[in-house]
This record gives sequence, C-alpha cells and structure tokens, in this order.
Amino acid sequence: MPFTPTDYLPYDFANRRHIGPSPKEMAEMLEVLGIDSLDGLIDETIPASIRMEGGLDFGKPLSERQLLYHMRVVSSKNRVLTSLIGQGYHGTVTPPAIQRNILENPAWYTAYTPYQPEISQGRLEALLNFQTMISDLTGLEIANASLLDESTACAEAMTMAQRVAKSKAGAFFVDENCHPQNIAVMKTRAAPLGIEVIVGAPEALDPAAVFGAIFQYPGTYGHVRDFTDQIAALHGADAIGVISADPLSLTLLKEPGAMGADIVVGSAQRFGVPMGYGGPHAAYMATKDAYKRAMPGRLVGISIDSHGNKAYRLALQTREQHIRREKATSNVCTAQALLAVMASFYGVFHGPEGLKAIAQRIHRKTVRLARGLEEAGFTIEPEAFFDTITVDVGRFQKGVMQAAVAEGVNLRKVGESKVGITLDEATRSGVIEKVWRAFGIERADDDLTAEYRVPEALHRQTPYLQHEVFHMNRAETEMMRYMRRLADRDLALDRAMIPLGSCTMKLNAAVEMMPVSWREFSLLHPFAPADQAEGYRELIDDLSAKLCAITGYDDLSMQPNSGAQGEYAGLLTIAAYHRARGEGHRNVCLIPTSAHGTNPASAQMVGWKVVPVKSAANGDIDLDDFRAKAEKHGENLAGCMITYPSTHGVFEETVRDVCAITHEHGGQVYIDGANMNAMVGLSRPGDLGGDVSHLNLHKTFCIPHGGGGPGMGPIGVKAHLAPHLPGHPVTGGEEGPVSAAPFGSPSLLPISWAYILLMGGKGLAQATKVAILNANYIAKRLEGAYDVLYKGGKGRVAHECILDTRPFEKSAGVTVEDIAKRLVDCGFHAPTMSWPVAGTLMVEPTESETKAELDRFCDAMLAIREEIRAIEEGKIDRENNPLKNAPHTMEDLVREWDRPYSREQGCFPPGAFRVDKYWPPVNRVDNAYGDRNLICTCPPMEDYADAAE
Amino acid sequence: MPFTPTDYLPYDFANRRHIGPSPKEMAEMLEVLGIDSLDGLIDETIPASIRMEGGLDFGKPLSERQLLYHMRVVSSKNRVLTSLIGQGYHGTVTPPAIQRNILENPAWYTAYTPYQPEISQGRLEALLNFQTMISDLTGLEIANASLLDESTACAEAMTMAQRVAKSKAGAFFVDENCHPQNIAVMKTRAAPLGIEVIVGAPEALDPAAVFGAIFQYPGTYGHVRDFTDQIAALHGADAIGVISADPLSLTLLKEPGAMGADIVVGSAQRFGVPMGYGGPHAAYMATKDAYKRAMPGRLVGISIDSHGNKAYRLALQTREQHIRREKATSNVCTAQALLAVMASFYGVFHGPEGLKAIAQRIHRKTVRLARGLEEAGFTIEPEAFFDTITVDVGRFQKGVMQAAVAEGVNLRKVGESKVGITLDEATRSGVIEKVWRAFGIERADDDLTAEYRVPEALHRQTPYLQHEVFHMNRAETEMMRYMRRLADRDLALDRAMIPLGSCTMKLNAAVEMMPVSWREFSLLHPFAPADQAEGYRELIDDLSAKLCAITGYDDLSMQPNSGAQGEYAGLLTIAAYHRARGEGHRNVCLIPTSAHGTNPASAQMVGWKVVPVKSAANGDIDLDDFRAKAEKHGENLAGCMITYPSTHGVFEETVRDVCAITHEHGGQVYIDGANMNAMVGLSRPGDLGGDVSHLNLHKTFCIPHGGGGPGMGPIGVKAHLAPHLPGHPVTGGEEGPVSAAPFGSPSLLPISWAYILLMGGKGLAQATKVAILNANYIAKRLEGAYDVLYKGGKGRVAHECILDTRPFEKSAGVTVEDIAKRLVDCGFHAPTMSWPVAGTLMVEPTESETKAELDRFCDAMLAIREEIRAIEEGKIDRENNPLKNAPHTMEDLVREWDRPYSREQGCFPPGAFRVDKYWPPVNRVDNAYGDRNLICTCPPMEDYADAAE
Repeated sequence: MPFTPTDYLPYDFANRRHIGPSPKEMAEMLEVLGIDSLDGLIDETIPASIRMEGGLDFGKPLSERQLLYHMRVVSSKNRVLTSLIGQGYHGTVTPPAIQRNILENPAWYTAYTPYQPEISQGRLEALLNFQTMISDLTGLEIANASLLDESTACAEAMTMAQRVAKSKAGAFFVDENCHPQNIAVMKTRAAPLGIEVIVGAPEALDPAAVFGAIFQYPGTYGHVRDFTDQIAALHGADAIGVISADPLSLTLLKEPGAMGADIVVGSAQRFGVPMGYGGPHAAYMATKDAYKRAMPGRLVGISIDSHGNKAYRLALQTREQHIRREKATSNVCTAQALLAVMASFYGVFHGPEGLKAIAQRIHRKTVRLARGLEEAGFTIEPEAFFDTITVDVGRFQKGVMQAAVAEGVNLRKVGESKVGITLDEATRSGVIEKVWRAFGIERADDDLTAEYRVPEALHRQTPYLQHEVFHMNRAETEMMRYMRRLADRDLALDRAMIPLGSCTMKLNAAVEMMPVSWREFSLLHPFAPADQAEGYRELIDDLSAKLCAITGYDDLSMQPNSGAQGEYAGLLTIAAYHRARGEGHRNVCLIPTSAHGTNPASAQMVGWKVVPVKSAANGDIDLDDFRAKAEKHGENLAGCMITYPSTHGVFEETVRDVCAITHEHGGQVYIDGANMNAMVGLSRPGDLGGDVSHLNLHKTFCIPHGGGGPGMGPIGVKAHLAPHLPGHPVTGGEEGPVSAAPFGSPSLLPISWAYILLMGGKGLAQATKVAILNANYIAKRLEGAYDVLYKGGKGRVAHECILDTRPFEKSAGVTVEDIAKRLVDCGFHAPTMSWPVAGTLMVEPTESETKAELDRFCDAMLAIREEIRAIEEGKIDRENNPLKNAPHTMEDLVREWDRPYSREQGCFPPGAFRVDKYWPPVNRVDNAYGDRNLICTCPPMEDYADAAE
Repeated sequence: MPFTPTDYLPYDFANRRHIGPSPKEMAEMLEVLGIDSLDGLIDETIPASIRMEGGLDFGKPLSERQLLYHMRVVSSKNRVLTSLIGQGYHGTVTPPAIQRNILENPAWYTAYTPYQPEISQGRLEALLNFQTMISDLTGLEIANASLLDESTACAEAMTMAQRVAKSKAGAFFVDENCHPQNIAVMKTRAAPLGIEVIVGAPEALDPAAVFGAIFQYPGTYGHVRDFTDQIAALHGADAIGVISADPLSLTLLKEPGAMGADIVVGSAQRFGVPMGYGGPHAAYMATKDAYKRAMPGRLVGISIDSHGNKAYRLALQTREQHIRREKATSNVCTAQALLAVMASFYGVFHGPEGLKAIAQRIHRKTVRLARGLEEAGFTIEPEAFFDTITVDVGRFQKGVMQAAVAEGVNLRKVGESKVGITLDEATRSGVIEKVWRAFGIERADDDLTAEYRVPEALHRQTPYLQHEVFHMNRAETEMMRYMRRLADRDLALDRAMIPLGSCTMKLNAAVEMMPVSWREFSLLHPFAPADQAEGYRELIDDLSAKLCAITGYDDLSMQPNSGAQGEYAGLLTIAAYHRARGEGHRNVCLIPTSAHGTNPASAQMVGWKVVPVKSAANGDIDLDDFRAKAEKHGENLAGCMITYPSTHGVFEETVRDVCAITHEHGGQVYIDGANMNAMVGLSRPGDLGGDVSHLNLHKTFCIPHGGGGPGMGPIGVKAHLAPHLPGHPVTGGEEGPVSAAPFGSPSLLPISWAYILLMGGKGLAQATKVAILNANYIAKRLEGAYDVLYKGGKGRVAHECILDTRPFEKSAGVTVEDIAKRLVDCGFHAPTMSWPVAGTLMVEPTESETKAELDRFCDAMLAIREEIRAIEEGKIDRENNPLKNAPHTMEDLVREWDRPYSREQGCFPPGAFRVDKYWPPVNRVDNAYGDRNLICTCPPMEDYADAAE
C-alpha cells in the first residue's frame, strides 16, 4: 500500500496553481449543473461547428522549477550592457523598497482599475501623488494618471490639440528634434485622420499653417531650447503649443508651463521604472485648466463620500466607461497605473531636493564627459544640454560605437557620422572613462569642478513638489508603512475574487512574476543592438508561435500596449492591406450594436465610417441585417468588427456566416480577443474566419492588471496581412509604429510565456473549460433569484453571465450601483456594471476561483436578493436600507447607529469574512460632486474641510 | 540658484533608510530634551571613560545600487553545484508563492516572537500547523514550534531524556549512524554536564548503562532500521528512546511513534527551506503527551479569549520568559519561526498525497541510481534505504568525487574508501546520469520500472495530515489568500513600532533582504567543498573583521545560531581556555542579579556554579559585593557575565573595575552583547575589558526577527581565546561545535554585511546616537506621567528606558498587562513586560523610528495614564474600563455595547490609526485556561466549540 505509486502529481497544474476548483469540487459543481462531465458541459456550451480540430500540443508542461531554470537559460542570452542611447529611455535606480513592496507585491499588482473608488483609495492616493508631481514639474494646472508611452502621448496631444484649437488649419508641426519614435507614431496616427504632419526645425514653424506644434525638451540630440517665442506665435494664430519633456530635467530647467505650453507630455520611466527593453512604464500628460475636460486618459480627482469625508475617485469617468461611439476620438485611455505608482513613490522617496540632486549630478557628469571629449579635440553639440550630447566622429562612427560596446557601453548612432551619448542616474565614473576610451582618450574622471552648460535664462525659477507628501519623513520604515497602509485600503485579487465580466481577473502566479524583476529582462534598452537581446528574441519568437497556434493566425505583432491599441493596430493593418491592393477607398466598418465601445472608436481612428448592425433579441448578431448592410456597402466595405464569444457571453453559431459574408464583399474580419479566455484550446478565431485579432495578455495570459495597467494587446493576423503589421523606425518594417517601442512592453512577456509553458496545451484547454464551468455554476446557483440574460441554445453561458438587475429599480428602488456597493460589504469587488446592457451586472469568475469562493459570492448575491425582496415586500425602508447605505465602514460602526437594521446586518452580510473582514476606508463616493468640483492634485489639507462643508 | 550643487545627497543614509528622525525632527527632539546637539546628549549619556578612541572607518558607505552590485560580484564567487551530500541537508523546491508571500514579505519577516497572542494569531496558526504536521509525521502526541537545528535538537533531546528518565545511569547512547555533526554537538553539550556519550552500533546498546539512546532514521549512511526492539529494551531499563528522523521519509516509513520512541527530533529543512550553506531552517521536536511539560522550546497551544472564542497563544510561556535561574537547564529555547512557517506552508501546499508522492519519487530515483551502479558491478549499501546509498570505491574515492564535481555534482566522502549519495526533491534524471558518469557508467536514466528497497515491515501503516488545513483547496489563488489573511491578523514592524526593550526591533531594509533569496547564497550545501564557497568565505571574513573592529575583539565565530547559544559558546570558549591552562577546576561564575535569565542558564550548561552579585539601588552592579564575591571565589573563579549597557538601560561607569577585578582573580569576562545597539561606533566591549561577547545580529545588525527566529549570535573573543572557539567535525577546529553547520545560518549574513556596508562607520555611530536620542525623547515626553527607573548620572537613559507601572496596580487595579493590551488598541506592540523589573515596561524605540511614530506612542501612553488617573479618581469603574477590557475587537463594536465608555473611546484611543486601524482578531487571551487544557495540534473544529462552553 504505501509504496504503490499514486496518480497524484504534486506539480500537476490542475491541482495546484491556476485552476481553482479541485477535482472533487468540480464533480460537485457538475452535479449542481445536472451534467455528468466537464466535456459534456463544454459540448453543450460551444457548438461543434466552431470547435478547433485536435488540441494544442506544446509538449510536456514545465514544473515551476523547470520553468525558472528555462527562464534563467533564456534570460542569460540577453547581455546587459550600460546603455547610453537615451532617446527617451534611461537607466534609473529602482529603490529596493519600491521593488519589494510595490512591484513584487500582489496587493498592488493584482488590483483592478479603480472604477470602484471605495475599495481603491490606496492606489488612487498614489496616482494623485503622480498627478501632482507631473503637474508641479511641468508647471501646468492638471495632469492625468498616466498614458501608455511617450510616443502615444505625443499622438494623443496632437489629436487633443486639434480638438481644442480654434485654428482650423489642417496641419500639425513636429519639431525635428523629437525622438524618432515619437515622430513616427504621430505620423501613424495622423494619416487616417487627414492631419498633415510637418517635420522641421523649430525656427521653420509657420504658426498660421498649423493647429498646433510639438517640441521635444530637451531635444533628442540634447538641445535645450526656450520655446516661449514659438508658443506665443502659435497662440497668436489660435494654435496649440505642445512640449514633450523629460520630467527629471524639469527639476533644473525652465518648466514648459513658464513657456506658455498648453499641453505637456513625456515619459516617467526614469523615475525608478526599469527600461525593460521598452516597457512598461508610465507616460504622462498635463494641460492647462481650460483644457482639462478635453484631456484623454484617466484622471484621479477628489470628492466626498456620503458622510462628507474626503474621498478619491476617478474623475470624468463617463468619458471612458460609457464611451459614446459617435463621439469617440480616442480609445487609448488605458493607463499604466502600477508604473505610475512606482514613479510617484520614487518622487515621494526622493522629494524635490532629491530629484534635483539626481538631475544635477547627471548634468555634472555629462559636462565632465563633454569636457573630456572637448579637451581631446572633439566637437560637442549642442552648446546647451542637460544629459545628452552628440559628437561628430565622421567615418569613425562605427569604430567608436564598436569600441564602446567592447567597453560594455552602448552609444547611439546619429545619422551617418555622429554618436549620441545620454547619461543617467545610474552612470558611474567608470562608465565615463569607458566612453572616453571608446574615443581613444585615456583619462581619469577625477575633475569634479562644477560647470553648467545651461544658459541662465533656462534655469528653473519656480518651486515644485511642495505638497507635504513630498516632504514626508523618508526613512525606509516610514516609507514601508506608507506603502502598506495604502495597499491595505484596497481590495485586490490577493484577498477576494474580482468577478468582472470581460476583464478576466485571474491568478497572476508568483513564479510567473519572478523573472520580470531579473536584470537580464529589466535592464535592457529598447534600442540595444539585437545581438544583446537574443534572449528576448527567443522569448518573443516562441511566445508568438504559441499564440499563433492558440489563435489560428500566421503571424503576430507584440507592439500594441493595450487591448484598445491592439484593435487600432489591427484595423491599421487591414487598412494598409486594402491600400496595397489599390482598394484604399474601402472605409466602411460593420459593428454590431453589442460591441465594446472601443470598437467604433478604433474604427473612427483609422478614418472609417461605422455602420451599426442590429442584435437579435437573444443578443446574437442579426444576420439578415448584417447581410443587408454588407451588401449595401459592398464596394466600400473595409471590414467588420465582432467579439467572440459575444459580449453577451454566448458562442454564436452564426460567426462563420458573418465572416463569410464579409469576405464575400471584399472586407476583412476583426475578431476582438477580449473573451479569448473562453476559447483557448477549444476554438480559434483564425479558424472561424477572422483575419486579425488582438489578445489581451493582461486578461487571458496572466499579466497582472496592476491596478489599471500595464497591459499588452498583441495582434495576430493571417498571412496575407503579415506584411502590413506595425513597423518601427529603429527596427524597420513597412508600416508606421503604434507604440514607442518595437515590442511594446517586453518585460511583461515572461509572464505570459511562463503561463503557457506551465500549463501546456492540455492545461490551457482545461483552464478554458473550468472558466466556463465556473460561470455556469454561478448562473445556476443564482437561478430564480436573478435572471441570466442571454444563454446559448442549450441553456448554458460561456465564461461569463449577465445578471439582470434592472427590475429591482422599479420594484424596490434598488440600482445596480446599490448592489455593487453592497457587494463591498460582502468583501467583493463588484462585477462589471451596466455593460454590455445598462442596469445589469456581468460576472466572470475565471478558472482561478475555487468553489468555496464562488459559493461565497453566490451566498452574497442571494442574500442581497433577499434584502431587495424585503424592500419589495415593504419590510425595509426604500431609502434607509443596507443597500442604499452600502458600503458600510468602520466609522459607521463607531458612530451612533440610527439604522433600522442592526450593525451586524449592515456590516456582516453573508459572504463577508468575519475576522478577515475588508473595510472600505470611505462610504459611498459622490462622483457628481467631484466632477463639479474638479480637484486633481493634492490640495492643502484645509481645502478638504472646506469642500466637505 | 538652481544650479548651485546642494548638500543634499539623495542616497545619504541618515536621511533615507535606517535613521528614523529627519534632521529637522532631531532638532525638535533635542529641544524637548533641552540640549543643543546630539553629541552633547551622547556626552551626557555615555561616560567619557568608556568611549572608544577614534571612530569606525569602513571607507565610503555604499549606495543601495553599489551594494547590490558588490553583492552580485561576491555571490558569483560561490559556485552552485548539485549537492548530493545529504548528511541532514537536502535540495528542496521552495514554492515561489511561499518565497514571495512569506520569505520576502515584511508582514511575516519583521514580526516579533508571538508573546502577545492577540496580535499574533496569524503566525500562531501557521506554527500550530507546523506542530500538527510534525506530530502527525512522527506519530507522537505533541510537537514544539521548532528548534534551532537538528544537532542542537539532538542535544536538547539528550538533556530532556536525562530529565524525564527514571533510570539514574549517567551515560547516553548515540547510534554511530547519527550524522557526525549531531554526534559532535551532543558531545559538546554532554561534557560539561558530566554525561558520558557512548557511540556505537545500535546492536551494541546496553540499556542498563544509559538513561537514554538516540538513533538516526534513516541513518547517515542510508540505513533504514526498525528500532522497536532497542526502544523496548530501553523502556525495560527505565531509559528513554530518542529517534532523529527525516520527516519526509516518514511519509513512507514506519513512524518513530510506532516504534515506541519517546522523543523524536529532526530537521524540517527539506520542507521547502533552501539549504543556505547551513541555515537557517527549522528543527523540530516531538514527544509523548506524558513528557510535554519537560519539552524545551516554544509550544503553540489553543486557548480561549475573554469572550470564550478560540485563540492561539504560546503555551507554558512562563518556562521561557520568566526563566527561573535556579532551575535553568537549557537556554536554547529560541525557535526558527519564519522557517517553521515556510515548512508548514510547504506541508499545506502539498498535503499528505503530495508529500508522499515527493518521497516516493525520491526513493524511486534512488533505486534507479542504485540499480545502475549495481548493474555496473558496484556494491551498494545498505540493503534497505530511502534516499541515501553508500558505495565502496576503494582507492578511487578521490577520483570518483572529482569526476562528479567535473559533472557539476558534489558527493559525500565517507571514510577513506566510500562515497555517499543522497537524492532529493530537486534531483532530475540528468543528475542521476551525471553520477553514473562519475563512476564511469554511460547509461540513460530511462528504466522507470518501480522497485522498492524498503522491507514491508518498515512501510508506514498509519495516516497523517488528516486535519482539514492539509486538505484545503491548493490552487495558488487560495494559498495566496490564506497567507495574506494570516499575515493581516498580525501586527509587525511594517505597520507600527515594536518598542520592545532589549529586543532592538529595527528596520530590516528591503535591499538587505534581497541577496538572501539569490541562488548563489541560498542553494549551497553546508559541506560543499570550500572552493565552491569562496563568496561566502569573503563575506564571512570581511563581516568578521568589521564586527571585530566594532567590538574591539580579535577573532569571531559565526557558529552560534541565537543569542543564547552565543552565550553558551562564549562560556565554553572560556572553559576550554581554563582547561588548556590547567585550570579546569575554575567553575564559579559571578552574575549580577539584574542579568537576563539566559546568563545563569548558560553558566549552568557549562557546568559552572552561579554566584549572584547584588545590584545597587540605582540598578548598577554593587561593586563592593562584586569584589567580595570575586575574592571569596578567587581560586575557582571562572569568570563573570555582565550586560553592557546594563539591562537597566544605563552605562555603568564601573564596568572597567568589574572587568579588572575579574581578571585579577584569574577569571574571564563575558559581556552580553544584547544591548550592542547602544554602543556601536561609540564604545567597544573589548576595550572595556571583555574577553568574549556575543552579538545578536538579529537585533543590532538588521537580521529580521521572523516572528520568533531566525537569529544569529556570533561571538567575538580576544586573541588568547581564539584557539578555543567552536570547531566543527567537517571543517575542523580543536573544540566541539555548538551548531549543526560550521557558520551557523550563513544565508542571513548578507543582511548584516549589507547593513554595515550601507552605513559605513560614521553611519553606524549615527544610528547608535539616534537610538539613544529616541529613547531619551520618549523618557522625556513621558516624564511626570510615568517614572523612569534607572537613569545615568546626568539624568539620561541609554537606548531604552524602564517605565514604572507598578504603582497603578494599587492605585487603580491596573496591571502592566492591562497597559500592554491597551496599547494594542492604540495600534502598538507592547514594550517588554516585567523585565528586568517585574511590573514595569521597558521601551526601546531604536533609531529606525521617526519622531511622528515616537509621538504617536507617547500620545498613546499619556492617554493611558489619563485613563488610569480616571480610575484612580473614581471616574471609571475599576473592573469595567478600557484597560481591563483591552484589547477591543471588531466584534466588540458589532455586539451590544454595554460598556460605561463609548465605542469611540474603547476602540480609537489616542495613537490608534483611523482608516488604517489595526484590529486584533481576538479579545484578551486566557493563558491559564490554555495551560490547563493543553492542546497543541489542530483539533477538529467542533472541539473548539466544546472548549468554549
């Protein structure tokens, strides 16, 4: 008996990591569903016609130990040199306390976007610190909570400038000193919108010809210029002045606000966020108060809760969550929350004195470097610089760069005869000497006399970071506790299920996160020579091949940094394909009315006309309407955008027809991959007729949501579209780029790769099946209490289900928001509210949740239904009841209790943990108040009191 | 202005990491103290006569980045080979979720020993899981919460056997198959106690001649034997049977309990705790119910709180904290809490099926290895084995071992002609093939037929790990949440000051913790060849040199694994010195009555007679009494043990006299280094006359307390004692070892080294000064409210102060415990209670705490004083008041509130955070109840209910 080998595999994936229910629990769940096997359930859920043939075969799944070994082998193929390439990416020193307590802490990285402010006060505060820091440094009144990267931020600034400019000119001027990738992304974005991009020297600007202009500060080759005159001229022509600025340089240099800039963008990467071969990191945007409502991106603001206490929340949210398709001008409102949080803590850690000292040191080092070169006879440009210089070395360009590499240093190739050198926080004396040696100079870096190469007129004259948070005690003890306090205020996946439909909040396993911190992945410059990034190459190639196998596509681009950006890139690819075939006139896109709002927004961003297609009563696409519209617009049909399984959580059987009709009329099919977690290993969009899809690696493939970013939205395409995937000015390609870096945010890719290698093909399919099982189990348990909208032919839902809470508004005065807030009392993040159907809740449990957690959720929902019933039956007051008063806080417990129900009933409804109860730090937040009184930087404390009165 | 280089150094240690008060705060604090400079305060505190000359000079302090670079360079000098050496240390796979969420999580590693159960329920539960796991696996009724290492556990078992055996024989039998370091440590421990150690084959045991015997299971050379007969024979002679067992093997093998063993010890290292070149890891001890009160070490038990709810707490605590010096027989009650927690989670992660599968796989691999060797003509012993085999290779011993190293594998040298091979969880097929190649066998490890080499009679027949915690859902999502829930129940340094006098709870900086996880430090076997551990050698040498410079000693041993063990090792060193000089008769040790209880215990363990010396009224040593006693015992004076600065928190000026008197009479001076945090950089025990001191690296030198271990207690000695420092059977040395591994727990040493390198000499001295400033600030702020016992001549305290709370018992019926529990309501861990003076609180803030945190604590203490005053004045009831009812829980808020004070007053006294309030999960725990009803394993849930009724 004891020595009979058991079937139990201690590392067996299904029992151990990603898959929540144990085999025993699954059996119990299937019994509740009245079906005898998981495969039987899947057969009832996914029509045979859309199942993939065979299964995924990725060989034997790796154990955690094997995975880490494999990752070590691959990562060691990346060679970490000192990159002085600059061009928007800089060496930086991540304070270890931030690395450990933020980046590597599930309380921060597993959180969702803070749409539910009551359970997000911690990261909202950190993001408000970020906004305050950016606003202060740029000298503009308001800043958002981050954007994807500097290049897309430039493009956003361009389109925002067009929106707010009174000038009706059709062109946008771009300083030739902008980083090449910024220029390229702006061109990509401008073309389909009909914006003419004029690239030239700042002196060549003709204000009358443009609606706006952007300048890089300091310029990509190092120039530090005052743009006050240009901006004044732009204003004279009713045009908008934009500056893309390095925020660290602004601690020393005259701030863009003082030059009159209307919009400032840039990258906060060098605020403690490793380069990561291109990302992720947080870009930023700041603007004048007058333009704040036109600013893209998320904006954290201050409001009050139902007791009048200060509370943070996302301001002007309706722009984002309830995007109006007719008005969509941008879908890139994704933020990089985790990275913005890191950057904001970097600012808090160093404070204004520290940041300034860092900047000064970098400048002094750059001056020393320059002086060494000058004294050896080299000519340095520009005259005024911060951290970047350019040296003309004529025909020795290649030789100098190679000599530098031999010293372990990467320099930047500028044109055919120059090299660029950018120093940073991490540059040590020895590195300066290495650079000199690459130029043939043997010299010690020991002359520490101070000399500055910035003209007086460009010295900063105004203070910054004066809010107390940037002057708090900076002992690590205090910092650690501040990070812990903020983390504890939030509810993330490390404490409870986050059953957000369409968001796929699944486990981000510890082993998958580990390689992200490894220097071989985190310290590479995105434009480092390819032979230093062979590990990344191997990772990207293999991951791409596996994702192609999963989706049924032939090629893949890792460039898009978010799902929405993936959509956009996919449509650009289709548009380029049509153009290449001489059918550039095709500009009609069919989109079902049930689509996610980003779909029409993306279509409009590529200059297409959106034609909506009706949904049938069961939520399916109305095939007749689709056919009719396709025929009507046949000549001009660019394509269609569909989501599969549909946003209603159903596998529509007509999907192949939809694709066929589109192809018949010369269109291309975009299948939104948002719901890929219901398909992996069972069905492939490429097989169904899709020509292109994006994948949300931060949903289906385990990249954590980071409290609202990072994300990755690579796109898979059929072979005929492959030549038209996004290119990049540094790495090549025919088409323009959509992101700053060639591979988007590569340092996240080890996570998705690890997930696939750990699961293997069978494991991935099992995860999909269990995701569907979990959703069906919830739907079944809530039967009778809530109507589930939209089921498949056999009464099953896919990986999510929509609960109809609309009737309660009439029957009990209870809104979907009341239920969402009541779930906080039960210790849950609310499901997705009012999408895709207003007034409903969409629940997606994912495969990671155990039966116990699903039951806890169902118990909570059933108890809430009983509370509603009590209102319906007049047993509880319609206004003063646990739902309307939710969420309840500890303060409610302490203060006089004047409720018609007990403290116990109010604070410990079914589902709530007892000892481990999660308490929201604030009562229900008043969003309207905050939007009326928009405050988006840290104000002095007394202001809160005023506001509350 | 903007370009004037500032004096601000962003990385300046004093402003950034370890030193809590900012310069501005320090100025404010000095003003409160009425003195104009920090140095002035130090001059008033530390008499000039005991100050060190000059300062510490360790060169320029490193920045965090420089430190990590330096650590990387040094760590890379360790070569990580696959060690199949065995001998009690095994490769293991730490689940990444445990590494991230426990080992690298400050909520776990910064916690203190769980003496205050109300704020320690999380780790108490994890430790109870550990005890349950050990109890189940060994088949004995009760297990403790860990011991230092397997060898000391063996020694503890030996002395415990002597305590409980009815046999009055004077010898202890040791199986020659015990690991050599176990035998050596038992011999070390036995000698001064007069126990004769008889080493021999199990068959040679003469039960009548011994009070007990210990057997290794499996034996160090691999033997798996049934000791039932030997133990029965021992019992027949009223002697005790001890087994030292590998707990993983017990999942397959007949458990020691079934053999009748009375005590079982062993190491839980291979339960997911990396070898770390020797430690730290958790040893264990289990025993029969009848002997539970004789068992050393900490014991977690179940009790009830003041509402009758289940609560965990340390059982039989009085044995430890209130050690009675006359009865002391062991001071090694330090536990390895953090490592026991890791091991217990390893058990929870795998459950019984998983552990068994791991063990089976290891065994099957070992059988395959053996078969390959046998088929090639080698003779394998023993016949029955689990994971270890021994091969006689005659004169080829060296050749085979070298060939193995060339393959990347370490084998064990056994005698002069054999090699030992031990496989483990981490052994892969490729490794078996490498071993074969080292024996000249080219063969693929592809024959997977099952064959077992354990006789039927030794197969385990009983179940284990049946408690539900070992059968919980093992998806990582659930595991992560379980770890988070437990962590959240506890109050550690990451949330609040832990002002424990004499415990020095200071910052454990993130950057210092990072290298601990690096494979180059964590994966080395303690007996790996020295040339594979050159990085460790460099670290240990440099750290030793720096610690010698700090203490004024000439040499140092890293071997002791705790402060108490350091004391013991120091006294052994002195005893050996006397013996070497032919003065082995010296056996009297003078110890002031104010000494820590471990001092007399240590003295008795080396066989010395303790002679107490009186304290003067001011707490100082009574010099006259000291002189008189030294004279009286002059001939036999072995030495004295003093603590400096004294346990009363005062720098006694007479210390040099005490040392001189001792030396005059031929004695040696032991200076307890527990209070070294008040001396570093300012005064050196070696200069004062000390001959030996131990250092608590887990206090002064930043190793985290880990919730009650790990620790490190290296000893520094003057040159004349250096030859008598502990040796080790593997690495050599004249004297016997005190620990299992030559350098104690080396994987912790990067922490202390990092601290010193980051601080530099000046920074270390500054930390000491600020520690003294912080203590004096508290003493000053509490002046008038509490009497501070014992001040120096100028009215200053050292780095801690004793608050006299004794009067309140009479005036208000308030005990020191009431105050301690009330501090929980305020969000604080209590100061040290009733030590060194019963009924008082000893407060040590350390330099890491900011002024704000000190003020929060003082505000809390002052408010508590007012509450006491209200009782004194009859304004509040003597029994029903916030102090007696403390701590208050969330449950108190929810249930009917029948207190004569408000919820607000009860739960939010001054000091308590509002939003970030810490709630203890239980009300005041009833210790007596738990000790009366001792339950030390996880019982079925229904039992709790019964107990509460």
